[in-house]
Amino acid sequence: MTRAAYDLEAQCGAARAGTLTVRGKSLATPAFLPVGTYGAVKGLFPSDVREQGAAMVLANACHLHDRPGADTIAALGGLHAFMNWDGLILTDSGGFQVFSMLDIAVLDDDGVTFRSPLDGRPLRLGPDEVVDIQLALDSDIAMVFDHCPPLPASRGLLETAVARTTAWAKRAVLRHNQHNAKGQALFAIVQGGLDDELRRRSAEELCALPFDGWAAGGLSVGEGPEALAGAVHRYAPLLPSDRLRYLMGVGRPDDVLEAIAAGFDVFDCVYPTRNGRHGSVFTREEGKVHLRNRRFRDRRDVIDASCPCPACAGGWSVATLRHLVMAQDPLGRALCSLHNLRYLHDLVAGARAAIVDGTFERYHAERRSG
Amino acid sequence: MTRAAYDLEAQCGAARAGTLTVRGKSLATPAFLPVGTYGAVKGLFPSDVREQGAAMVLANACHLHDRPGADTIAALGGLHAFMNWDGLILTDSGGFQVFSMLDIAVLDDDGVTFRSPLDGRPLRLGPDEVVDIQLALDSDIAMVFDHCPPLPASRGLLETAVARTTAWAKRAVLRHNQHNAKGQALFAIVQGGLDDELRRRSAEELCALPFDGWAAGGLSVGEGPEALAGAVHRYAPLLPSDRLRYLMGVGRPDDVLEAIAAGFDVFDCVYPTRNGRHGSVFTREEGKVHLRNRRFRDRRDVIDASCPCPACAGGWSVATLRHLVMAQDPLGRALCSLHNLRYLHDLVAGARAAIVDGTFERYHAERRSG
Repeated sequence: MTRAAYDLEAQCGAARAGTLTVRGKSLATPAFLPVGTYGAVKGLFPSDVREQGAAMVLANACHLHDRPGADTIAALGGLHAFMNWDGLILTDSGGFQVFSMLDIAVLDDDGVTFRSPLDGRPLRLGPDEVVDIQLALDSDIAMVFDHCPPLPASRGLLETAVARTTAWAKRAVLRHNQHNAKGQALFAIVQGGLDDELRRRSAEELCALPFDGWAAGGLSVGEGPEALAGAVHRYAPLLPSDRLRYLMGVGRPDDVLEAIAAGFDVFDCVYPTRNGRHGSVFTREEGKVHLRNRRFRDRRDVIDASCPCPACAGGWSVATLRHLVMAQDPLGRALCSLHNLRYLHDLVAGARAAIVDGTFERYHAERRSG
Repeated sequence: MTRAAYDLEAQCGAARAGTLTVRGKSLATPAFLPVGTYGAVKGLFPSDVREQGAAMVLANACHLHDRPGADTIAALGGLHAFMNWDGLILTDSGGFQVFSMLDIAVLDDDGVTFRSPLDGRPLRLGPDEVVDIQLALDSDIAMVFDHCPPLPASRGLLETAVARTTAWAKRAVLRHNQHNAKGQALFAIVQGGLDDELRRRSAEELCALPFDGWAAGGLSVGEGPEALAGAVHRYAPLLPSDRLRYLMGVGRPDDVLEAIAAGFDVFDCVYPTRNGRHGSVFTREEGKVHLRNRRFRDRRDVIDASCPCPACAGGWSVATLRHLVMAQDPLGRALCSLHNLRYLHDLVAGARAAIVDGTFERYHAERRSG
């Protein structure tokens, strides 16, 4: 019996509309997860994040282990209480982050030893530690610790990463089943870079294990939109069709649409919020625009009069938003972040409606910017 | 006829409860004005600022002249539209700010020439320019451009500043009356440092001019709480009792209480928001506490269970607030700023109620932390 039930409600081509249920809480899919690495979506009130359409957010187990510590969060009542978020929480294992700083990390078959980016103290993460951390955090969905080599990577390294990810996944399943008292779900992360054979091997090995869901990791790491678009169509079918399919680290609107078309259900990325903090906002007419551009200095209208986000519905002129961004006022960053989150949530909600209607292909063509 | 009617409703000792009305909008006094130098109270939604108790905010004419420019704001519909704030707005003239950087500014009898702190381009501010800027901004209350020397200052410099402030005030009154088409109020700023004779001279000269209100400037600039406490009691009575008395730049809770006791009605300061951004929060039990302190690491309770601010009523544990502050997340800064604003607004609202009840002396003794 899975702890993360996925009900497929409609399909349109490979695109799927469904509902994920974990611990009695539901997520309508396709869905986008805002990222709150350190337990908050930077600068945003949880109520505002929720109102833009988020039912699940992502936090990072590795970062929270570093600060303030999983034990501290456990003693405070767990991550939901700590974050003041009563929706769903998925914790990423931190594999991607740890392996992106391998110049200062030492890898062995049992895990990685590295120094805290905050204060330099030694930290150790392995498959068991990462399970323990996420059980202490008490997130709704935990991710295994995977070996995620930055691309481009040699075939040898990719093969090692796939083997190690499988070995760690087996240990994670055992450890998790021993200690999981509260129904937390556990997802695996398929690796293999852009090597189809290795992706297939990784998927086969991991899908043979009793996970509650599977994710594709190690994509959207610099390979470019065309390569990513090809990859999502080849790799989504490798994951079981009766479970949630999670594509990690993807948040460009066009990439999300392509991944939905390929049959992925859930996506996370800092893309909308990071762009918002830098004053770049998503628009239907012009794609992503940079409010720092001088041409926005005197624009009295809002970003998009039909958008219900706090920036647009709240009547914030583009000129004021630009001014706040130029003045580095966190209010401008928050308003642009909320607009971008709303844009993405509305984009995937529209995709869901189109899948149910059987018109996803047209929707995809209309909403694709490129 | 004044454009800023002040109705005195109750008096308790020298402390006053009243109502200021400008352009049909009211402000119950005593009142605290949050500071939004560049047109936003840093990082805060106007609706949240309003909900903590603010009916009037302060913005800085000099800074907004520098960026994005008063003409830009005028073309966008004025400062209320630009800031998305439909409450009262008082614009400070920027005298204090300009004179605090006199090492890079050149002063003459007609104004100050200096370079933009933003991009180094030359800027010029004088009594006429500052009136024009504030009329373009269309704030509800404009402040004259004053000569505000940093303390300690020689008697000669203070005397020059008083004379120049009066000369500039006369020009401001003329200029303002010529061009003021929308009922903006204009306030004068009394100078004189801590020299009683010069304060009296400045007040007499300025109160003979047809202003809508008067402020005490050039205080709370490093003279210390005891000197300030003495000064407010000596200088409040110099201002007309039938008009609003505004004490500029004061926001420490104890200083505000003392100034209310002396007969001042309105106060502005970055103190609550700047402290909040640094993770220092006001409490009734312990005064100002620094959340960065390790002792708050595991505190599950909120700052003050009886406080209705978003941080306290929203259930944010002190431990999470501390974590957000340590992680430099703007969410933590916003929550702490809102708590401090609420603290100050509740403090002055309590003072008002006590004045009406005739119990202000007891209230002052109870709420004074020192």
